Amino acid sequence: MVSSNTYKLSIVLSTQQAQFEAVAFKGDFESNIAKIAGWGYDGVELAIRDPDLVDVGTLERVLLDHCLKVPAIGTGQAWGEERLSFTNPDLEVRNAAVYRIKRQIQLAKRFNALVIIGLIRGVTPAGQTKVQSMRFLTQCLLDCLEAASAQGVYLALEPLNRYETDLIHTTVDGLELIHQIGSPNFGLLLDAFHMNIEEAVIEESIRLCGEHIFHFHVADSNRKYPSAGHLDFVSILNALFSTGYQGWVSGEFMPDPDPDTAAQRSITALRNIIIQSR
Amino acid sequence: MVSSNTYKLSIVLSTQQAQFEAVAFKGDFESNIAKIAGWGYDGVELAIRDPDLVDVGTLERVLLDHCLKVPAIGTGQAWGEERLSFTNPDLEVRNAAVYRIKRQIQLAKRFNALVIIGLIRGVTPAGQTKVQSMRFLTQCLLDCLEAASAQGVYLALEPLNRYETDLIHTTVDGLELIHQIGSPNFGLLLDAFHMNIEEAVIEESIRLCGEHIFHFHVADSNRKYPSAGHLDFVSILNALFSTGYQGWVSGEFMPDPDPDTAAQRSITALRNIIIQSR
Repeated sequence: MVSSNTYKLSIVLSTQQAQFEAVAFKGDFESNIAKIAGWGYDGVELAIRDPDLVDVGTLERVLLDHCLKVPAIGTGQAWGEERLSFTNPDLEVRNAAVYRIKRQIQLAKRFNALVIIGLIRGVTPAGQTKVQSMRFLTQCLLDCLEAASAQGVYLALEPLNRYETDLIHTTVDGLELIHQIGSPNFGLLLDAFHMNIEEAVIEESIRLCGEHIFHFHVADSNRKYPSAGHLDFVSILNALFSTGYQGWVSGEFMPDPDPDTAAQRSITALRNIIIQSR
Repeated sequence: MVSSNTYKLSIVLSTQQAQFEAVAFKGDFESNIAKIAGWGYDGVELAIRDPDLVDVGTLERVLLDHCLKVPAIGTGQAWGEERLSFTNPDLEVRNAAVYRIKRQIQLAKRFNALVIIGLIRGVTPAGQTKVQSMRFLTQCLLDCLEAASAQGVYLALEPLNRYETDLIHTTVDGLELIHQIGSPNFGLLLDAFHMNIEEAVIEESIRLCGEHIFHFHVADSNRKYPSAGHLDFVSILNALFSTGYQGWVSGEFMPDPDPDTAAQRSITALRNIIIQSR
């Protein structure tokens, strides 16, 4: 059991305009960072389409000024906006996706962050078997993990619900891939919103994953801030902490009713929930 | 409070091969009807793409032989396989969708069934506003309801989760449309799987809908048979019956691990749940 003051709360922030709806903040980056720090968050999870377009010096300065850590880097915009993926039949596209993640790994190293493998895995295209997709995915992951291991960076694969991809929906799917890959730098990012759709019993799945949980996303059943839906976060976070999890609890939810209100309500709700869940 | 022996259980059966996965039965129709009756179901909800392709005489005979009622007719295959919809920008397509539903209404009258308005509402296409989609949808519904009212048939609109359509996700969305349409023949079909994603508190939404609930679908949180996921069906069905609901509890779920096993496990679980929920 970890002590009650060791939990770390973060929230997703995009470094640029993106189509992906479930990003809490867009617009002026530094003012958002200041607000996030002001509300009491310990860190900010960055959604970055292309690290080569990020002014890393400024980013480091802004984060330092506001004493915010970066627990994780989200990479899904490269799929959402450029259709880069690990399962595209075109080798050039897969190579570009792998190169992109290797650049994310280099950026992540500077922030001691992990790199999220979410939608960058793609979706099985028409005419390709799922078995072939999983082969491509595994090859790309092994390639990325060689770079990640060399740099001491961790990759966290996020199971996503059936409507977002045909590949890796459940924690069991994720664990199978982890055992197949067999790298200590490869683990899971669990997201409560996706788990609500895919897992028979959310708490049991969390306990099953145990030490393989590298990162944790909170959004409620309707993808709004925690407490806006019907998930039992006291029970869910109790299960998470009971595994010995020492990582971050990171908010990724819809900006509803607006980004600032959602972010404030989330941290208020989470602090209350975490007190009850330990 | 209704007495404990008045509940009516049905399950979805397709009258023909369809792409839609969440249909419990395909294959030989009569042998499936015999199995459904044998497992103790009181009725069978029919998924019909085009009533003009159904041999109604045979259908009536088979249902009579096995003492099964038809509580509802599902119409979504006309969208899934022919892309007929109430919101298509092409007037001819909308007219074809309305004609199809009018034919379903005629068929429904023979079985004393209601007609489900699910995916036939379509999805807002690129370049069309959602406001325009809702205008088209309302016009088509009014047209269908004129026929339904004349024949004494009821239409039940099913709120669907955000991934399946952009139109009418929640019970509140559905109630707004019901009040706008203002026909006593127009109500809601609530589906537990969709509610798990869209409703903040499922039981409160059920109570809010009250007498406007014309039909009820059960699938668990993972769209498997009830008890295979984490929905609290005792609480959900208690809320449903507390509204005075006298309608059917109808299983629409994935054929997992296989159609027969899922159908049998569902009725066993539901009987047990219903005893506890009253």
